This record gives sequence, structure tokens and C-alpha cells, in this order.
Amino acid sequence: MRLILAIVQDKDSNRLSDALTEENFKSTKLSSSGGFLKEGNTTLMIGCDDDDIDRALEIIKDNCSHREQMVAPISPMGGNADSYIPKPVKVEVGGATVFVLPVDAFHQF
Amino acid sequence: MRLILAIVQDKDSNRLSDALTEENFKSTKLSSSGGFLKEGNTTLMIGCDDDDIDRALEIIKDNCSHREQMVAPISPMGGNADSYIPKPVKVEVGGATVFVLPVDAFHQF
Amino acid sequence: MRLILAIVQDKDSNRLSDALTEENFKSTKLSSSGGFLKEGNTTLMIGCDDDDIDRALEIIKDNCSHREQMVAPISPMGGNADSYIPKPVKVEVGGATVFVLPVDAFHQF
Ligand code: NI
Ligand code: NI
Ligand code: NI
Repeated sequence: MRLILAIVQDKDSNRLSDALTEENFKSTKLSSSGGFLKEGNTTLMIGCDDDDIDRALEIIKDNCSHREQMVAPISPMGGNADSYIPKPVKVEVGGATVFVLPVDAFHQF
Repeated sequence: MRLILAIVQDKDSNRLSDALTEENFKSTKLSSSGGFLKEGNTTLMIGCDDDDIDRALEIIKDNCSHREQMVAPISPMGGNADSYIPKPVKVEVGGATVFVLPVDAFHQF
Repeated sequence: MRLILAIVQDKDSNRLSDALTEENFKSTKLSSSGGFLKEGNTTLMIGCDDDDIDRALEIIKDNCSHREQMVAPISPMGGNADSYIPKPVKVEVGGATVFVLPVDAFHQF
């Protein structure tokens, strides 16, 4: 048994959580912020048999990897909206920081 | 020294926290949700001397075990309230998922 | 690699978090409450190379140690405000409870 702590972006957390559930991994979300990733992140605790760690990590990687997205910028306030042509900008999203912790004992009551 | 992570239902968390305090266990609550248990759960972190783990687990078991309760259902909306006889329904409540983690070092400043 | 869990008072958490960032420690905040410290605490998770643990602990100690402060008390409600001379009172603030956890594996995606 291991305990996986995965710190992911809020926007990726529901997709990750669903993907984990589909393969019968049990997870709990802790609300967290700052630091490892930009503001608005979530920490998932995932209880995991030793044999299933590689699969769990794969699911995290598939759903939360660091990637770049093109985003339409907000038009500038007070600017001349007619002459403003929005140019998509590249933003970095996603990313996961993952700690795998040893577990001495696991109980369910 | 061990760190116990106990994921319990919100409704059990205050009772558990009080019971732990009564026996001088120190605990901290993390707000958490979903996954291991139905929505609305709380994760307690409990610092614990090795000799006291069994007692801490017993307190968790006593206060948060999975159990069944008879609950009076809400009367159906729009139904004929006069002729409606509420029949108690069985619901599953409680339950605790517990990880006992090894601790390398413990400090208080 | 170790995972440091530091439970500190809310009022110390931003200063600690900034001090950690300045020295390139990555941390994530979990909102927490009660127990180890008075109400209103924050749990910081700090990922840390083995060689850097002593420095991380020093930063926590420097920014969150238990200390006493003199505070001007609120004037008593309904009392005679004219004749009331506020006497500063000593209050205990700060303090940190710190668990250093072993880590089996660390990943960034
Ligand atoms: Ni990048
Ligand atoms: Ni059942
Ligand atoms: Ni003191």
C-alpha cells in the first residue's frame, strides 16, 4: 500500500478524479493553493496497492501533464473594441507534482 | 512517532475530534471532499506516539464506523401531504479510511 | 527527498511561504483548522531534498516560532469608556508542528 499525493491544477482535478474512479482508484481531494503550481490547485490523496502505482501515475500523467494552450485574450478595457483584433496567446497549463509515500498500515472501519 | 490520516464523514468529524482531544491526541482537520467516502468528508491528521496507535485507531473506529441509520424521508414535493405516511428508510452513514504513515522526524517550534 | 508537513498559524503562513519561496523551496498550502494549534491554521506541504531539510526547518522556526505578544485589549462593551484605561495583555502566538515524512518516489509531469 502506498499513498500518492498529487498536486494538480483545479481545472484538471475533476477529469483526473473521474479517470481514477473509472479504474477503481479511490481518491480524496484536499483544497490547496499556491507554491508548487500556480494559484488554484487541488491535492488528491490516492490510496494505492503497490502493484497499481505505475498505472495510477500514468493516469495522472495522461490527465494533468504540463502543456501549452492557445487562449484568446480578453479585449483591453476602454480600448476601441471595433479596431481590436484578438491575437491568441500561448499559456502554460496543467502540470502535476506527485509524492508517493510509504504506508505502515491501512484500515477501513 | 506516526502520522495517522483519517478520512471520515463531516458529521462524524467533530465527535471524533473531541474524543481524540479528551485522550490528549492532537489532531488537525483538512477540508476534503469526494472519493473514498461520499461527498462531505474531512481528513484528520493525528500525530501519534508508536505506543498509542492502537488506542487512536480504536477511537476512530468507535466514532466513525460504517453503520446503518433509519431516516424519516422528506415528504414528496407536490404530493398529497395529508395521505402521505413517511416510512423510515435505511441509509448508510459513517465509515473511515485510515492511513498510518511513518515519520522521519517530528518538531515543535 | 522528504515531504515536510508544517502546521502553522494563519497569520504566519504567508510570511513562511514567502521566505520558503525566496530560497527556492516549493510549498503548497492546505487549509486546515483546530487541534495542534488554536483555530485558524494552515498546513504547508514542502517538498525537500534530503540535504535541504535542516535549512527548511530553520526557515520554519524563524518565521513561526511560539512567542508572546503584548496586545491592546478591546474596551469592555457597555463599560464607561471615559474611565477605561486599556492595559496591554500578553497573548501567545505562533508555533509550528512539523512532520518530516519519507518519500518513496517523486514525479513531475
Ligand atoms: Ni513549460
Ligand atoms: Ni454497508
Ligand atoms: Ni508559551
